[in-house]
Amino acid sequence: MRSSNIHFPQGFYAWGIASGIKSSGEADLGILTSSPAARAFGLFTQNHFAAPPVQFCRQAIANQLRISHIIVNSGNANAFTGSQGLKDVRETADLVKSHFPNVENTLVCSTGIIGKYLPMPLIRTGINKLSKSYASGNYQSFAKAIITTDTVLKTVQKSIILNGKSVKIGGAVKGAGMICPNVATMLAFITTDINLPYSYSKKFSSLADKSFNSISVDGDMSTNDTVLLLSNGCSGVNYSSLSKKDKHLFDEMLFEQFQQLAIKVVQDGEGATKLIRIDVTGAGSYVMAKDVCRSIANSPLVKTAFFGSDPNWGRIIAAFGSLQLPRSADTFTLKLCGSTVIQQGQLLPFDEKSLSAKLQAKTCIISLDLNSGNKKWTYWTCDLSYEYVKVNADYHT
Amino acid sequence: MRSSNIHFPQGFYAWGIASGIKSSGEADLGILTSSPAARAFGLFTQNHFAAPPVQFCRQAIANQLRISHIIVNSGNANAFTGSQGLKDVRETADLVKSHFPNVENTLVCSTGIIGKYLPMPLIRTGINKLSKSYASGNYQSFAKAIITTDTVLKTVQKSIILNGKSVKIGGAVKGAGMICPNVATMLAFITTDINLPYSYSKKFSSLADKSFNSISVDGDMSTNDTVLLLSNGCSGVNYSSLSKKDKHLFDEMLFEQFQQLAIKVVQDGEGATKLIRIDVTGAGSYVMAKDVCRSIANSPLVKTAFFGSDPNWGRIIAAFGSLQLPRSADTFTLKLCGSTVIQQGQLLPFDEKSLSAKLQAKTCIISLDLNSGNKKWTYWTCDLSYEYVKVNADYHT
Repeated sequence: MRSSNIHFPQGFYAWGIASGIKSSGEADLGILTSSPAARAFGLFTQNHFAAPPVQFCRQAIANQLRISHIIVNSGNANAFTGSQGLKDVRETADLVKSHFPNVENTLVCSTGIIGKYLPMPLIRTGINKLSKSYASGNYQSFAKAIITTDTVLKTVQKSIILNGKSVKIGGAVKGAGMICPNVATMLAFITTDINLPYSYSKKFSSLADKSFNSISVDGDMSTNDTVLLLSNGCSGVNYSSLSKKDKHLFDEMLFEQFQQLAIKVVQDGEGATKLIRIDVTGAGSYVMAKDVCRSIANSPLVKTAFFGSDPNWGRIIAAFGSLQLPRSADTFTLKLCGSTVIQQGQLLPFDEKSLSAKLQAKTCIISLDLNSGNKKWTYWTCDLSYEYVKVNADYHT
Repeated sequence: MRSSNIHFPQGFYAWGIASGIKSSGEADLGILTSSPAARAFGLFTQNHFAAPPVQFCRQAIANQLRISHIIVNSGNANAFTGSQGLKDVRETADLVKSHFPNVENTLVCSTGIIGKYLPMPLIRTGINKLSKSYASGNYQSFAKAIITTDTVLKTVQKSIILNGKSVKIGGAVKGAGMICPNVATMLAFITTDINLPYSYSKKFSSLADKSFNSISVDGDMSTNDTVLLLSNGCSGVNYSSLSKKDKHLFDEMLFEQFQQLAIKVVQDGEGATKLIRIDVTGAGSYVMAKDVCRSIANSPLVKTAFFGSDPNWGRIIAAFGSLQLPRSADTFTLKLCGSTVIQQGQLLPFDEKSLSAKLQAKTCIISLDLNSGNKKWTYWTCDLSYEYVKVNADYHT
């Protein structure tokens, strides 16, 4: 499996096939397996209309079930499908149990069109085909099977020596904004062969919040967004018995992979021509820092300005000024791509032409020091281009 | 004064001139006068970085000063200008006092570029010219003097007989979204010759909230947004002595004018090709109804879908599902331009082609019944087109 490295850690396998859910005939059914079964950690959409597969996975994680398989289909989100949708999720999990060896518990993820029932006949023949394809060598990559409108495959892998042993992390993500009629979702899968205790879930949530919850393409929240981390312990390394320093090293490496996957989603955002990194520092709280980030990241006016490489500080101020801020924030400092535009609340003269040239970079940085505390947050977004309007308005024609 | 009818009620005069603030040489300084001085009611931006003129007006309204004059300049927002900005506002008010007869108190409003000091030499000569232009007949309309990137003049007028006397309302609004680098603001001015008591301010706020606060072009909040209502009593009718029914009649007429002005702003939104009206009913509270409206109105995915006349109910669900909703909202009913797409939570089959044809209307209606109470709200927004990206990204080139 050339292009996918989610199976890089020991004990994981992952592959995919075309089951016919996508009329294009492209890969649309993937499986990720862990032997032995893994501990699972999850972050899910907060959308009120969370899809049946999300409800199913959320329950399994809450019950601390050990997960041996994750089956993912693309092309149909099984969202807004009610009790029939949940029934189809359960049947899918049962099908995995009857077709694969050593199945302990299965998670089910879906992405694609909203409001259509899963085509169960295709799922049934597909799972049968999937179970035989690995031995026959006739398969495609897992990363390919999970994408919809993504223009590139998005995977990561990394290893580190801890306690003299190699600990590995792999990952694959799918998502390019909530593009195209009823096509939604970011799905992220991360594997590791370290042994993580269930108590790691708090750390997991914090790392996932700072990465997958800190990106924005268009500010919309899908019904299917899911991040799953599997830990199977095959490396022989126990996180719990690591020194404080080594724990920190592992956390950092895991966060790096989360962030890289998250950034790949933004980079592949519809019509994106550049990445925008927003660093908010000097905030009174993490909540304030994150809110300020999000307010700037979701402003269409800020995003179009960056598309035009326009050093439009007024729009940035208007965006974060729309929040409740302490008076100390009046003396904020704002930098665009390293150039100070506002210093402690005072507008500095700057050369518009040369700053505009800087903003033509592939990655632009907005640095905002709120002068109100020592909390910070980083957020990633992309610009808003003609192409965004095109892919989102013209899909159905 | 042909095109402006803000001076339609008795006792009001309004006109404008070109003072040179706009390099184009177009009208950029306007004055609205009331004799006798009027009671004033105001609604202002909640932005943390509210501009000095907003701070000045807010204070005057809070002090219940009677207002004889409102001076408005376009081309420079006097925003993010600190204590110098506030000093310039005060000098502007003083200049009006020294150049016009019978000045009791003056309000000052500005719209245009952020972060530049008001060009006071031009303001000084401009106010002198303005004070002489009415008598000489050499003036332009107030509505024209207050616009920036607006493509049309936006005014209203209406009259009604109450207690046997004619009561009149006039209005002018400026705004087309927060377009162009650092050019911001909606400014709305409404005049009436009924005598409103200061206790009307609660009703005023409620009517303004349901109209001027219930529109969205791009979801951004400017530093200068201002709505001012002046009431001078020249009709001889006292609101306080009206019957309950007549009070209601006046309130309705005033609200209608507010709403018409607000809708004119959306219609003139950058790149807008159609109006979208969002009716949320069956909500548990006004706050919920309004939040649901806003969440749908500000979704770029919903707005691009309407630009493409795409009946994309999935995006509407994803948008309002991102809010905290009660479980009863699961059985919502959604109609697009009168066609039921989801009935009590169940997706109905619909002909995509014929519904798409309906969505090509100049005004599209999203009706959403949340099945969770009896509160409702109406919001107006516009679609998101290529042209929006163009005016917002390419301005500086």
